[in-house]
Amino acid sequence: MSDLAWVAVDWGTSHLRIWLMDAGGQPVGHAESDKGMGRLTAADYEGTLLDLISGALPDTGKVPVICCGMAGSRQGWREAPYATAPCEPPAMGQATHVPTQDQRIDVHILPGIKQDRPADVMRGEETQIAGFLTCEPEFDGVLCLPGTHNKWVHISAKEVVSFRTFMTGELFALIGGQSVLRHSLTAEGWDDDAFLAAVSEGMSHPASLACDLFALRAESLLHGLSPAAARARLSGQLIGMELAAARPYWLGRDVAVLGEDGIASAYSAALAAQGAMPRAICAEDITLRGLSAAYATLKDTQ
Amino acid sequence: MSDLAWVAVDWGTSHLRIWLMDAGGQPVGHAESDKGMGRLTAADYEGTLLDLISGALPDTGKVPVICCGMAGSRQGWREAPYATAPCEPPAMGQATHVPTQDQRIDVHILPGIKQDRPADVMRGEETQIAGFLTCEPEFDGVLCLPGTHNKWVHISAKEVVSFRTFMTGELFALIGGQSVLRHSLTAEGWDDDAFLAAVSEGMSHPASLACDLFALRAESLLHGLSPAAARARLSGQLIGMELAAARPYWLGRDVAVLGEDGIASAYSAALAAQGAMPRAICAEDITLRGLSAAYATLKDTQ
Repeated sequence: MSDLAWVAVDWGTSHLRIWLMDAGGQPVGHAESDKGMGRLTAADYEGTLLDLISGALPDTGKVPVICCGMAGSRQGWREAPYATAPCEPPAMGQATHVPTQDQRIDVHILPGIKQDRPADVMRGEETQIAGFLTCEPEFDGVLCLPGTHNKWVHISAKEVVSFRTFMTGELFALIGGQSVLRHSLTAEGWDDDAFLAAVSEGMSHPASLACDLFALRAESLLHGLSPAAARARLSGQLIGMELAAARPYWLGRDVAVLGEDGIASAYSAALAAQGAMPRAICAEDITLRGLSAAYATLKDTQ
Repeated sequence: MSDLAWVAVDWGTSHLRIWLMDAGGQPVGHAESDKGMGRLTAADYEGTLLDLISGALPDTGKVPVICCGMAGSRQGWREAPYATAPCEPPAMGQATHVPTQDQRIDVHILPGIKQDRPADVMRGEETQIAGFLTCEPEFDGVLCLPGTHNKWVHISAKEVVSFRTFMTGELFALIGGQSVLRHSLTAEGWDDDAFLAAVSEGMSHPASLACDLFALRAESLLHGLSPAAARARLSGQLIGMELAAARPYWLGRDVAVLGEDGIASAYSAALAAQGAMPRAICAEDITLRGLSAAYATLKDTQ
């Protein structure tokens, strides 16, 4: 492990992902853990990190550790104050240095980005955006980042111009998993037609959400609505609402959807049904690309 | 306890309420328990009931026990098939008899009401409606029943003509208590102005719900939004959406809101701000009134 040059860390709310990087920019080791921000106090971070990388650290010298994500939140390791949009994805010059007991590591946390009005915040996605821009530096359009807190980001001239967050994914998980609808939904299963019909319904009649959702329960009780169709309709209704509100973002713009998994495919299908032509962007290692771009700026500043 | 004539039971998802009634129609005893449908299997009901009323039962003869609510659901004590709207609130002729081991009780469960299209169901509220109609038999208008699953019920000529259920209360509890917003909300506290502004926002821009909610989190982080204002805005946004979709129910109709507690007052205030003039109806013992009305029809059928 003598060729360890730096450590890349994506420290989110529920997950921790670590890559050991060599001087050539290639990962030479990888670790994952469920010790996300939600399970840690500030005092836990250094030990958690060392448990996973200590064996790879050289005896002499300091190894840079570059983190992004919720580790930089107020409830995280150390608060990394937000950059303010419009701005480029933050580089090392804006990172927050974290003092450590162990002198073999030199920890920096990249800031998230905030927007004052309308008030919005991101932590972690700015590094995905930085990674995306290494692939498409001339991108001028809208990036859709599906997830628990789905983000629409207007990007132009390498800057995050504006963005909005929709807690659609979190609503889907809460309603599907914990409301009365949990009795009517499967955890898996899907129905494309039911999904697209619900997207259209959610776009045209967003106000009736709370009523249309209870109707899923009633249709399940009275008319035997299938659990897979109910799940697809819940998703479609929520995504349809979101598309109606996010129309200024996607209408007539170059739209790229990050990811090819289930939820990203659902957004792509919903957008395509509205006549948008979203491109699916491979999300694999996009955060690592962003962290690597930041590491490149660290070398610039040294 | 020789004057026990019958037992009234409101058996909901999370609560059980029992009244011991004398021949004059007055309650002579009362019991409450948290052994609602959600915590019981079908085999548990008889014992749960007897634990609470056994000491009051006479040695000879059978005491009628009249139940309403989720005890009659498929997951309850015994399924009491729905009556179908439009219909009057169900009377004893439509109740489901439940055989018991203990020969001192004669148990009947009143059905709920279903609506085929749009699919909707109620269990328990039909008995509140029956109770309300004993006070206002000539009511022609809309009854709003605030709760976990808020209901708008069009009543005319003593019949439930049509109804719609909004799971607004459940959404409020889930989002306020379990989503990322829980960090930004108080469990108590209120801000009337913030509530009414959010009602208006929810009515005009219902599609942006998932975005406006995340903005509460962001405003709390960036601009110090108070937890009480955040709670009022979450409630207002959800109720505003509901009012937009329920407009055909309340616009230009005689509207009565059942209850005078916090959530009923919130609905009344939101409606009043839209120019409706809702009346607040005292909800105390309204279910008991409905069960008593059903008991009166039992005597008719004997």
